[in-house]
Parts: sequence; structure tokens; C-alpha cells
Amino acid sequence: MQLGFVSAILPDLSLNEVAAFAKAEGFECIEPLCWPKGKAERRYAGVTHIDVVALTQAMAEEIRGRLATAGLAISGLGYYPNPLAPDRAEAEVYIDHLKQVMRAASLLGVSLVNTFIGRDWTRSVDDNWARFREVWKPLVRFAEDNGARIGIENCPMLFSGDEWPGGKNLAYCPAIWRRMFEEISSPSFGLNYDPSHLVWQQIDHIEPLWEFRDRIFHVHAKDCRLDRRRLDQVGVLATPLQYHTPKLPGLGDVDWGRFFSVLSDVGYQGPVCIEVEDRAYEGSLEARKSALRQSARYLRQYLSGEVGA
Amino acid sequence: MQLGFVSAILPDLSLNEVAAFAKAEGFECIEPLCWPKGKAERRYAGVTHIDVVALTQAMAEEIRGRLATAGLAISGLGYYPNPLAPDRAEAEVYIDHLKQVMRAASLLGVSLVNTFIGRDWTRSVDDNWARFREVWKPLVRFAEDNGARIGIENCPMLFSGDEWPGGKNLAYCPAIWRRMFEEISSPSFGLNYDPSHLVWQQIDHIEPLWEFRDRIFHVHAKDCRLDRRRLDQVGVLATPLQYHTPKLPGLGDVDWGRFFSVLSDVGYQGPVCIEVEDRAYEGSLEARKSALRQSARYLRQYLSGEVGA
Amino acid sequence: MQLGFVSAILPDLSLNEVAAFAKAEGFECIEPLCWPKGKAERRYAGVTHIDVVALTQAMAEEIRGRLATAGLAISGLGYYPNPLAPDRAEAEVYIDHLKQVMRAASLLGVSLVNTFIGRDWTRSVDDNWARFREVWKPLVRFAEDNGARIGIENCPMLFSGDEWPGGKNLAYCPAIWRRMFEEISSPSFGLNYDPSHLVWQQIDHIEPLWEFRDRIFHVHAKDCRLDRRRLDQVGVLATPLQYHTPKLPGLGDVDWGRFFSVLSDVGYQGPVCIEVEDRAYEGSLEARKSALRQSARYLRQYLSGEVGA
Amino acid sequence: MQLGFVSAILPDLSLNEVAAFAKAEGFECIEPLCWPKGKAERRYAGVTHIDVVALTQAMAEEIRGRLATAGLAISGLGYYPNPLAPDRAEAEVYIDHLKQVMRAASLLGVSLVNTFIGRDWTRSVDDNWARFREVWKPLVRFAEDNGARIGIENCPMLFSGDEWPGGKNLAYCPAIWRRMFEEISSPSFGLNYDPSHLVWQQIDHIEPLWEFRDRIFHVHAKDCRLDRRRLDQVGVLATPLQYHTPKLPGLGDVDWGRFFSVLSDVGYQGPVCIEVEDRAYEGSLEARKSALRQSARYLRQYLSGEVGA
Amino acid sequence: MQLGFVSAILPDLSLNEVAAFAKAEGFECIEPLCWPKGKAERRYAGVTHIDVVALTQAMAEEIRGRLATAGLAISGLGYYPNPLAPDRAEAEVYIDHLKQVMRAASLLGVSLVNTFIGRDWTRSVDDNWARFREVWKPLVRFAEDNGARIGIENCPMLFSGDEWPGGKNLAYCPAIWRRMFEEISSPSFGLNYDPSHLVWQQIDHIEPLWEFRDRIFHVHAKDCRLDRRRLDQVGVLATPLQYHTPKLPGLGDVDWGRFFSVLSDVGYQGPVCIEVEDRAYEGSLEARKSALRQSARYLRQYLSGEVGA
Amino acid sequence: MQLGFVSAILPDLSLNEVAAFAKAEGFECIEPLCWPKGKAERRYAGVTHIDVVALTQAMAEEIRGRLATAGLAISGLGYYPNPLAPDRAEAEVYIDHLKQVMRAASLLGVSLVNTFIGRDWTRSVDDNWARFREVWKPLVRFAEDNGARIGIENCPMLFSGDEWPGGKNLAYCPAIWRRMFEEISSPSFGLNYDPSHLVWQQIDHIEPLWEFRDRIFHVHAKDCRLDRRRLDQVGVLATPLQYHTPKLPGLGDVDWGRFFSVLSDVGYQGPVCIEVEDRAYEGSLEARKSALRQSARYLRQYLSGEVGA
Repeated sequence: MQLGFVSAILPDLSLNEVAAFAKAEGFECIEPLCWPKGKAERRYAGVTHIDVVALTQAMAEEIRGRLATAGLAISGLGYYPNPLAPDRAEAEVYIDHLKQVMRAASLLGVSLVNTFIGRDWTRSVDDNWARFREVWKPLVRFAEDNGARIGIENCPMLFSGDEWPGGKNLAYCPAIWRRMFEEISSPSFGLNYDPSHLVWQQIDHIEPLWEFRDRIFHVHAKDCRLDRRRLDQVGVLATPLQYHTPKLPGLGDVDWGRFFSVLSDVGYQGPVCIEVEDRAYEGSLEARKSALRQSARYLRQYLSGEVGA
Repeated sequence: MQLGFVSAILPDLSLNEVAAFAKAEGFECIEPLCWPKGKAERRYAGVTHIDVVALTQAMAEEIRGRLATAGLAISGLGYYPNPLAPDRAEAEVYIDHLKQVMRAASLLGVSLVNTFIGRDWTRSVDDNWARFREVWKPLVRFAEDNGARIGIENCPMLFSGDEWPGGKNLAYCPAIWRRMFEEISSPSFGLNYDPSHLVWQQIDHIEPLWEFRDRIFHVHAKDCRLDRRRLDQVGVLATPLQYHTPKLPGLGDVDWGRFFSVLSDVGYQGPVCIEVEDRAYEGSLEARKSALRQSARYLRQYLSGEVGA
Repeated sequence: MQLGFVSAILPDLSLNEVAAFAKAEGFECIEPLCWPKGKAERRYAGVTHIDVVALTQAMAEEIRGRLATAGLAISGLGYYPNPLAPDRAEAEVYIDHLKQVMRAASLLGVSLVNTFIGRDWTRSVDDNWARFREVWKPLVRFAEDNGARIGIENCPMLFSGDEWPGGKNLAYCPAIWRRMFEEISSPSFGLNYDPSHLVWQQIDHIEPLWEFRDRIFHVHAKDCRLDRRRLDQVGVLATPLQYHTPKLPGLGDVDWGRFFSVLSDVGYQGPVCIEVEDRAYEGSLEARKSALRQSARYLRQYLSGEVGA
Repeated sequence: MQLGFVSAILPDLSLNEVAAFAKAEGFECIEPLCWPKGKAERRYAGVTHIDVVALTQAMAEEIRGRLATAGLAISGLGYYPNPLAPDRAEAEVYIDHLKQVMRAASLLGVSLVNTFIGRDWTRSVDDNWARFREVWKPLVRFAEDNGARIGIENCPMLFSGDEWPGGKNLAYCPAIWRRMFEEISSPSFGLNYDPSHLVWQQIDHIEPLWEFRDRIFHVHAKDCRLDRRRLDQVGVLATPLQYHTPKLPGLGDVDWGRFFSVLSDVGYQGPVCIEVEDRAYEGSLEARKSALRQSARYLRQYLSGEVGA
Repeated sequence: MQLGFVSAILPDLSLNEVAAFAKAEGFECIEPLCWPKGKAERRYAGVTHIDVVALTQAMAEEIRGRLATAGLAISGLGYYPNPLAPDRAEAEVYIDHLKQVMRAASLLGVSLVNTFIGRDWTRSVDDNWARFREVWKPLVRFAEDNGARIGIENCPMLFSGDEWPGGKNLAYCPAIWRRMFEEISSPSFGLNYDPSHLVWQQIDHIEPLWEFRDRIFHVHAKDCRLDRRRLDQVGVLATPLQYHTPKLPGLGDVDWGRFFSVLSDVGYQGPVCIEVEDRAYEGSLEARKSALRQSARYLRQYLSGEVGA
Repeated sequence: MQLGFVSAILPDLSLNEVAAFAKAEGFECIEPLCWPKGKAERRYAGVTHIDVVALTQAMAEEIRGRLATAGLAISGLGYYPNPLAPDRAEAEVYIDHLKQVMRAASLLGVSLVNTFIGRDWTRSVDDNWARFREVWKPLVRFAEDNGARIGIENCPMLFSGDEWPGGKNLAYCPAIWRRMFEEISSPSFGLNYDPSHLVWQQIDHIEPLWEFRDRIFHVHAKDCRLDRRRLDQVGVLATPLQYHTPKLPGLGDVDWGRFFSVLSDVGYQGPVCIEVEDRAYEGSLEARKSALRQSARYLRQYLSGEVGA
């Protein structure tokens, strides 16, 4: 496995600066975010480390060269919109940009694009299904045609009242993953597996690694802490941020030792990208860099590879 | 405490027959359901053991006499509609009948009416709050004026897709109870406490007894079993019946020994009514009677009083 | 479900006396042991409450009448030898008697015979498999032809050095049950499910109820206590009696509330027979009767039916 | 084992009335309290169901006859003072009366007297040891000479500020029992084992049954509930009633199933006397009787013998 | 947060040498002990890394300069006597020196002094309260006047018979902290929070971080291991070293991941000083240095900042 | 303690190369495997880093010098055959070579030889005992005569069908260790303690450190993960690899923090050698080196000493 990070946490740095930091800290890869320029619709979204719309063959080659020199790989390109947004015109914009990201992946020689399924959050899973089929069958075919694989992150995209009740991403639990892969069985369609989202849903965050081993294209290393004291006041019907807090790896309830134990046994050899969404570490650029450094130090005890000098 | 049962499980028996059974089995009280005649809108609803609309002073006295002879008390009158239903005309019907139940309670010399707050299940708790205030302030005043107390059952009324996402009863967790009683502090406004609804919400089902000791007017003894195996597939965002099953007391995850231990320490001396909603025991009248018998036998180890001869 | 007991614990009583005791204590059924007369090869074996070899149509009818009068059913006939004993002549004797038991079941109007698969305990499961197939395919066919069902108890028959290393019954774990029923899928071939044997094997004793729901023909209610203190000295490679002790229901590690909860949900409606193998209760006939009485009292809290007067 | 109760909870009844109640409820024995008349120095103390000072041979025989007729045994005579009280004159009074109780036991044909070692609560265990030796060696010799056995209850006698810091009974933990029995190895010196006192001390309440099996002369069935919420505020340095509450059997943290499981395996065949010190059940004589009835019902699921009709 | 250590473990080094070691190992701060010269009344006490009595403005500036050059901060000055010692003359000596430490803090530009409340260990908390008020109200006022804050370590100072029964520091549990801060609400009065002391008291060592977030002025990183095996022999009434052992961070029962998770969420940004009291690491100066190195390595996985080169 | 590794995982490197790697990574010792040349009877066996048969005084001195220069110690010589193999001629070969290893230890100035007791795996422990005595009494005497100590690894040597049922090493549990050391009490006879083998046997892997503290001559740091999901299918009667997987330290169920906590408290100061048998890390020499690096990084948080630069 290769340890890296999601670039969203360093929006104030250019791709070059991100790469320099990654190299200095001994990371082996990065997942650059590829939102369209100027767009920042929610926390952690809207970062453009690669402007895929403007990307030319020449620019792509320059990036490849620069990263190769730094000994860094791109683990995948990241773009996490809501392709099933109720407003179809809005959704179309997301879908078009997602195709642009796939095109850019091809130019950059990167095989993976990470994203969300999306969801009309006001409707049930069943009521979203026809739309899922309609949008995603062609999208996966587009990916296949462009030599890309799609890694769907398993985040429910449900945090507070804004995304209530259903969240903005259908792919949040094993039962739904199973249904998704029965519907679209393409080997280009898989998961960007983040164990922390399963923790607060009270789903075993390790067991699914066995069943979905062939679908795990990418791993996000994020953690979260479920606070029993708060849960005892509001219960699981509350919006999730009322009873849990996203944290750095090692500061939450993910059992990382067991996670990497099983991950290694199912044969996973891909990237593991730290995703920082811990508000206690967001006060400054230095704090955010520090968060990546600390997370890497924590994770390295379960991962081969060198610790950054 | 007095052991009894909710009459909903014996819809095929008349109040007389219910009382005869209760007496024979050594119960000390019953909670007769008082739905309007002819109405059965959902499972376990619509049972009319006392027709409050038709009830006259004379009839009430006859009932009182009969029950007194059998050594039985009425723990409370039960009617569980949705007084905040989105359709205001529909809600008005419920509210009117609820007042009829209070009037009947007065005729019967019963101090308690058990019911739900209700909810527009398509809207958030906050978005229901103005309506709660508007409907319930006068209702509680009506209760006060009629010498009645109102016991709100803490059931989220969320089971499957029909009640998704919010359920049909606001009063489902301690944080909301606190808000309710801050809003309406009348000593006539309290809880019909059912620990099983807290279990699947992952809320400590015993700790709230300490804080809400003065608000517990009635107790429902129902149990439920949370199936980890099923929860691991769907998570807490699923509709609740996907991962838990209502069961008889003793066949679920409620810690009854500790429950009655604390209940006795907070000074509760009221009724404890078994509520049967266990589909494995619903095949026949005999099975349903058997369910009450078995539940009583289980609960009697934690309760004083005699076991039915 | 009907509560009963295995007759082995009352070897000093005749069938008539066993029935009288069962009736007096409010049991609903019994499992009479049917070993050949005079044979007592090990503890709890060799009891002959019905002498199937001598049984005539007339005697069978007399027994049926007597039990019917007492309101008692025969849950199944029990005979637990080693039909795969390494000495084939010995095994043949067991197989022949097993057929006699099936014949007797037919005369008695009983549909179930409980027994063991058997095993050559010196050889691995795989090395026993050909013999299993060879012996049991015709036996199950014989059962089908005689209108009998066969309930295989899931006891490893491994207690101490005598049965080391493999035990004398192949059917001890879910993986092997699955293999058995794939090999012989007849609806006449099922399990006599005893949760206690799973406890010390460290197998979830409740989860298999879901998968094998259609194969559960009979239930034995026995319990056992695993002693951590002893296990810490010898580990799971020791013979099992070094670290666990068979006990009455309620005095061991079986989670009976959850067991009956799931058992009722998978639709099981058959017999539950208490099997007493608790040496602390074997000092006298009175002690053994007492053991049955106490076990019934314990189990009745999770089971419908009356408690013996 | 024989189920009975400690008579202290029925101070308003005479011995005759206590016996009548015990018989009616199906108990098999009682432990009558034998405080000197007129003395009630603390809650649950000072009850005189047998006035040992006044007891004559004739009175003793009358009592024996009456109890025999009721089918009741005396499990032991109970008197629980502080024989190591710092005031030596006071202690001497206790010691003298203790001898009177032993004399009465002899008259009544009872072999056991239950009591405390006592302690100067202001001094450490070590600093009490010389006094323990000095007082108890002759006392045990006196018991031997009178054919009595002494059962020391393992209560620390530390509840609130009055007994702080050391409590009024040395015999509170296995390490001290070991030291006691090394010091005085007489077979007439043993324990009146009450598991509840071990619970709040955070000592395994079952494991010592193995080591001290030959020293267990009597068992008190009391329970207690440790409240984590309260303990989290004050810690184990607080006086014990700040974080735990004595309760009826089944309403606390004692694991009774496992307790009786091991108790039966170590060969204990003696009395098990319910001791009621649950303030939620002390409001009236009826409530206290009810407490005994409920406790018996709870314990009978783990004990042979009949349930009171 | 800044990682440092308490200087007590390096008594053989001068302040200069301590600072050189700290710098070499990448620590960010130190808590120098400031006992009066020549005084070493108990293990870990009596170390004088800064002689506050002799300290002049010039010396203070030299120290400040030297540490600044090494990139090291002083987290607080440490002096842990018993200001409520029963011998008032003795107590007065402590109080006077404590004021000297505050004066020195001012000279050194350090805002925090860490110490104990003290206690007459032979008397209850209540019986110490008047004295607490009398001594500490002026002391806190003195601190305010000198621009110092006081961090009270939450150690019960109860280890073995010498401090029995009450220990030598009142401030040992949340209930008492609450009482302390109600009595003296000055913002200059807070805690030097050491989670390990809560562990063996069976108090949740993380939950109080929420309530006392504004009172946490300093953190000690020490760990301890509670030995169930030993506790089962002696119970919580024993002196604490009979059942637990102070250990290096990571070798005990403190849940450091969760501890730092919540600590970061309550906004704590102050020092975290390793306190070594692990006898397995005290054999030599090298062993003690090694203990600090290992502790830092363990803690750095949960803390930002660099690992010492 | 000194951190090192077992050389078996680097069979493709010469002793020189192993030492170079060890030095580069900051290890303090190694356990070189000393199988006879050319022999590789099973996975992880057959590695010859020192050819003890050919070893001369001169060669031994060269090795000592080289390692001393690298700052490396030999923790012990390793050779793990079956000295109680049923084929006595085969066993004799093992015994002879074991003596050669002891001779070599003497030449190398190494005091410890690590090995197995061996076992006839088809026979019970008792049935192997006479042979154990016969073989090992002279072997331990031989060790004493040669100034060597023998460290018996506590591996049951039972993985799959080949070693079924008894495994190839008697010394697998505390009860047997006790028996071994009663039989042969020589201070030259001890344990090479590997906690992972106790984990899947369900034996407390830390508690025995207290009792056997004087017998622990060497420690193997290996881990393993017990998979509940798999165990639930096959139970403890299955061959162990059906339900558990050997893993690197930190990726399994060993509680390393507590392990090293107690290990330091019992005074252990010897070597801790990482043993890699994790198939997920065996794909290449680089992967195996990586496994050692990662394991060391994990273990260093609980161990003093430097992390490899």
C-alpha cells in the first residue's frame, strides 16, 4: 500500500507546493482534488489542484514529470459532487465535469477517479434507484471507454439539517453496495472505502473488506469519534454531527490495526489517502500540515514504507 | 407497581372478557384502548375497548363497579393517533377524540390518558415545533381543566417506509423530552415510558429514569431485539424494522433487572403495562393470551405482587 | 413450543412413572430413550424407557393411550450410539437398532428419531466422509420409507481422553452441517439442536438458527459453563471437560432469552426437551427430579405454556 | 440448598409470625436475629427474634417443635456487633452476648452462629491484627467447646461517614480471609458468604467460591447496584453508599446464575438466606413481605425446591 | 499542544543538562521542579532544578535566554507539598515556599505554578474543608496579585499505609473539583490534569475534560495499569499500590487516543508533560532518559509536532 | 530489552547481509537460524544462517567480531525440529543436531538455544510424557554441561491437517509448562515466550508472565488475528488455521502495550525478536524487509531503544 493524502486540506497551496510537502514528509502518493475553478459549495469542497477543464496534453506531461521526480504517484483524481441532485440541470453540470475529470485522468495516465453516486436526499433509496440506473450506466460505460475506473466513496453525505433526511450519496452501506454492483457489474466500478463513515452508522467497518475485496479501488484514512454521552441524548434519528465528530486517524473509533490486518489479507495493494476533516486541526496552514504529519506517523505503525525524514 | 397490559392485543375480546382474563391471570390493572369505533388505520391501532363517544355516566359506573369487583384498576386510557398530522382537518379529528378520551377518563375516575404528540413526518423536529406548541398548549390546559394527566409514549412511530423519514411522534428522545417540558411545564404533562424504543435508537434506556423521574406517569413493558447481523448490512440510516424486532419482555435487549432496580429507586409506584407487538405470538387468540402470561411470568421476578394462580 | 425432557435422567423410573412425573410437573412432552435393553456403554446412555425390539402394535397403542390421557406427547424417540464406529460389526449393531427405533416410531405415531451421525474418532472429518455417505444415505432413505424424520444432535461427543481427538459424532459445527445437508438434502434429515455444545466450541450458539431454520426438528435445552480460569491453564487443545462443565439451563453461558427470541422468530414450533447432565444434581432420584423442576421453572420465563402446579 | 431469609426485615413480627409467613411462602429455613433486647444501634440491627439471654431449655424445645411442625429449619442464629470496638468495655459486652448466642444455638440444636469479626475502624488492618488474634482465638475455642460453628459475614461494614475509613468488620476480602484462616485454622471458623459486598469492592464475587469452598458455612442472598454515573463523580475513595445501592436479588449486579452454578459445583448444600436491605421496599410491613416474596421468586429459577403456593 | 516532561525524573542532571537533553530529543517544553534545596521527603519529591529562593532577576533572565535558544518553554513551575498538613507550622513552610515559587514564576515570565491542595489525611473531605478555604482563598489571591495561575494536580497522594486513609491532596475527583471551583471561582485557579489518577479510582478519565475544559491549565502524561488479579484479592478498600502500578504512557489503561481526541476538541492548546514514575525504568540515568524517549515516541502518534531526530 | 528478529524470514540473505540490514534498521540483536544445510521440511524451517556443523573456533570468532562491530548481539541460536518424532531414528537426527547447535552456541559465546520439545502428534500429552522425560532429561543435562540454556518456544506446532490432532510440540500451555518444570527443574531449562500462540488457544497471553517470570529466557514478537466469523463456522475443534491468521505485531489480537507493561514489571531484560509469518508480507525480499521495519516501528512505542535511522 502507498500512503498519501487528499489534497483538499491544503487549498492554499498549489499542486507544486502540495507535492513538495508530500515529498518532504515521505508520502508516496496524493489524491488531487479537481473541482471546477471557483466553485466551493460546501466545507472541504471546491478545491482545484488540477484544473481539468484547462488541462492540455503538455500540461499533463509536465505534471507527470514533476511528480515522478518527487517519487510521488497520483492515487486518483478526486471530485465529489451530487450527480443525482434533484435539479437535473444542476446534476448535468456535475456529470459533465465528472467526464472532464475522467478525460484528465487519461491524459495524466491515472486510472482512477473518485466521486459520489449522489442522491435526491428528500427521497428514499428505492425512489432514487431508477435515476441511479439512468445516470450511472452511461457514466460507467464512459469510464470503460476512457480506460478509467470509478471509485465511489461510501460517505452518506449526511451531516446536519441541510442534507436531511437522506444525505447526498446513495452508496453508504453494504446492502446498497451489493445492489449497486448487481445493477452495474462492470470491473471499472468500485469503492473508495472510508471506514469512518461506517463507524457512526454502527456498521462493522472491517467485515465488508472480505466480501467487497475486488471492488476496493482506493482507501480514505479518516477517523471519527462516536460520543455515547451525546448519542444518549438524541439517538440515531438525529443528524449525525449531533453525536459524532470526524477526527484524525488514531483519534477515533476505527480499529486501524485490525483494519490494515484484514486489508492486507484480502490482497489490497493500493493507495491509502489520509483525509483530514478534523476541525481541531484546521486553524492554520501549519496546523493542517501538522495534522497530515501526525496522521502519517500514526498510520505508519500499521503500514510498510518509510517514515518521512 | 401494578402489573397490567395494554388491551390492544386482545381486540377479539370485549372489555368484560379482557377483565376476566386479567383477573384470572393475576394482573392488577389494564390499559383499555379507546380508538373511535370502526377505525383501524395501522397494526395495533383501532381497538375500541371503551367507546368513549358513547360513554355515559351510568355506563362508566358500571365499568368501574365491574373492574373493582375483579380487583382491577384502569392504569390509563390509551389512544395513540397523530395529532400533528400534516392534514390539519385529519389532525383536528384526532384532537377532538383525544378530548373525548379525557372526558371519559373523568367519568371513569381515571387520572391518566396515554397518547402521542404526533408529527409531520416529512419535516424536521425544529420545523414541527411551532405546531407542537400551538396544538399542545391548549390540549394540556384542557387536561388540567378536566383533572386528567397526559402520558406521552416515547415511540418514534417510525418502522418502515410509510413513516420515513421522521416518524409520527416527536417525543422520541431525552433531548426532545427536555425541550417539551421546558415549553410546557405543567405537572399534567408527562411520559408513558417504554424502554424498548430507546434500545434501537442506541440510547441508554435506564439513565433517563433519574432525570425524568417526576414525569414518568406510566410504563409500557415491551422489549426488542437489535440484530447486529442485519444492522451491519444497512446501518442506522435504514428504517428501523430492517435491523430490529419488537419482542416480548425477556426476549430482547432491555435490561429489565436494572430497569426495575432504578425504577424502584426513583420512587415510581405506578402501573407497568405489558404491550405485546411480537409477531411470533400473534397467530391466534390463544397465542396472544399466552404472550401475556409468559411476559407476566418473566416480569414478576423483578416486581412484587402475586403470580396469577 | 412444547416443554419436555429427555428421559435419560430418570433411569430408575418406568415409562409410566416418567409420564406421571411429567404430567404432575406440567410438562407437555417427553423424549423417551430407546437403548437396547441391558446396554449401558457410557454415562447417560443405555436407558430403555421403550423397548423398541419387543414393542408390538398393541403395546404401542397402550403407550399412546396412556400418554394421551396424561396430555403428553412424545417429542421424539432418542437413541444416541456411534453408527460410524471403527469396528464395522459394532457399527452394524447400532445401525440395526436405529432402524428398530424408526420402526417403533412408526408404531407409536411419532415422526422423529433423535440420534448421532457417529464418527471414527481417530480420523479427521474428511477421512470419515466416505463412510458417512455410505452409511447415512441408505439410513435416511430408510427413514423416508418409514415416514420418520431423523434429528441429529450436534454434540461433538468429545469430553475426555476416551473420545480424543475427534469425538464420536461428526455433526458438531455449522460448516459440517452445511456439508451434510449438501450431501443428503432429504427433508427427513435435520438437527436436534443443543446450544450448549456450541458454547464451549466458541461458536455463536444463536446465529445458526437463521440459516438452519428448516432443519431444526428438535431442541435440547442443556447449558454449560465455560471456566475462563481453567481455560487459561489448558487452552482449547485440551479435552473439553478440562475447561467447561455441563449445567442446568440458567446455570451456564447459553443466552436463553436471545435463544428463544430468535427461535420464535424463525418459526420454530416444536419440542424443547430439557437434558440434565449436571453432576451437582445427580445424587439421588429426588435431586434429579428437582433438576427438571428447576430447569422448567427457569425456561418457562421464555416459553409460553403453564408452570406445573 | 435451602432457601430462607434473615429475620431482621420483619422486626414487627414475633418469631411465631415470622415462621408462619415463611411457611406460607414456601421457605425452607430462617436466620432469626438474636440481638439483646432493647438495643438497636443502627439500621437493620437490634432485632430480637429469639431472646437468647432469657432462653431456657423448655423454651428452646418449644421453638424447635413449632418450627419442625412448620417444616422450617433455623439456618443459623444471627448477631452482628463489633467485637473489636475500640472501647474495650463495649466490645466485652458484644463478646459476652455472642457467647450467649452460641449457648442458645446449643439449646436449639442449631450448629451455626453468624456474626462479624469487628474492627477498630480508625486503624489499619495490620494495626487491628493483634487484637483480632487476642479476641478470636478464645472465641473460636469457645465455639468448638460448645459444638458451634461461626460464620463470619464478609461485609466491610462501611457505608457512610460513620464507619469511615476502615469499616467495622475486618473480614471483607479474600486476602484477609486467607490470613484469618491461616491464623485460626479451626474447622469451626468459616464464612457467611454474601456476594453483594464483593461487587462494589470490585472483587470477583464468584471466583472465591472455589478456594474457600470448605469455609462457606452460610450464604446471604443480597444484591447491589453499582452506579457508574455516580462512581464517575466520586471514585472509589468515597464512602460506598455514594456510588452503590443495596438491592433485592435480581435488581443488582450479582450474576446469580453463575453464582449458583459454581456454588453447586463446589458442593455447597447449605442455607441461602435472603437479606433485604433495599430501601425501595421498606415502606411498610406489606412491602417488606413483598420484597421477600419477589426475591424468592427470582432466586427459585436457580435453586431447586418448590415455589411457595 | 507542546510535548514536554516533568524534570523530577532527572534529579542527577542540572537544569542546563535537562534542557540539553530535552532539546536533543525534540521536546518543546519542560516543567522544572522547584523544591527547596536539600529537602526530599518522599519518592519523586525534593528535586530542585530551579532554586527559587536564590533566584535573582539576573539568574532568571539567563535561564530564559538559555531555554529560548534551545527552543524550549517552561510549561509551569512544579512544587508538590502538603499545604494542609496537620502540623500547621509544617504547612506554613510549604505555603511560604509556594509563594516563593510564584514569585520565581513571575521573574521567569512563566504564568503557571503546579501544586497540590494538600490534606490532613486522617480526616474526611468535609472535615478538611474549612482549612481548605482558609488556606487557599488567600493563596489564590496571592497568585492573582502576582499574575500567576495555579494548576492543582488531581493526584489523591494515596499510595500505601503512610498516606492512609485519605491521602495528602483533596483535589482527587470531579465532585470535589466542582466544590473547589464553586468555593474559589478565580480564573487563576485550575487543574494540572493527570488521567492516570482517575483510572484506578474507577472514574472515567476522559469525560471530565468536557465539563472542566476551562480549568485545565496543564496536563501530566502518566499512565497506570490496574491489575484485576490483584484487585480481586484486596478490593478497593486496600491501599492503591496493592492493585495498580504507575507506568509509562502506552503501558497502562489510559485510552490515550480518545484522551487526545477529546482534549483537542475542547480546545486545549497547552503543555503535555510526561511524568515518569515507572519503577521498571528507574534503574539508571540511561533507563530514565530512555523512559522519556519511549514515552514521547508513544505519545507523538496522537500529537502534532516533530519526533526528536 | 533488545529488539531483534528471527532470521528465518530472510533466507535469501547471508548472515553478513542479515547483520547489515539489522544494523541499518537499528536492531540490537538477531536470532540466527541454524538448521542443518539443505534441509527445509516445512514453511519457515530449513534456514541455515550459521552452519553449526562446519563451524570452527576461528569462524565463530570472525562472526563474533563482525557482529560486535555492527553493535549487534545474537539473542539465541534457533533450531526448531521435532525431537520426539514418532520415528525414533528421525528424532535422533534432530537431537544430535540440537547438540551441535549447543556446541556452536558455546563457540559463539551465546548462552541460549531456542527449540521445541517435540511431540508424537498422534498421541495424547500423557502418552508422550515418558518419552519427554527420557529425551529431555539428558538433553538439559547436556546443555548444563555446555553452559547453554534452552528456550522452548510455546508453539503447539498445529496448523492444519498435517499436524493433526496433537501438534508437534508439547510445550503449548501453562499447565504443561508447570508439569515440564516440575519434571526438569534445571535453571537451564526455560521458555521462548511467544504470546501469539496463546491467543488462538483462548489462553490469557499476559497473565503467565507473572508465574513463569524466571523461566522466560527469550521472547518472540509475533501476532495473530482470530476471526470470529470463521470460528463461528468451525469451532475450536477445527485445525487452527481455519479460524486464525498469523500477522505482524500490531495487526493481531495481542495486547502489546499490556504485554510489555507486565514484561517490564516482572523484570525481563532480555531479547524481543520479531518473527514474521504473515503471508501478506512474503511476496518479495523487499516486502519481508518491510515487514521487519514496520514491526519494529510498531513495537518501539512500547520499548526503549532508538528507532532505526
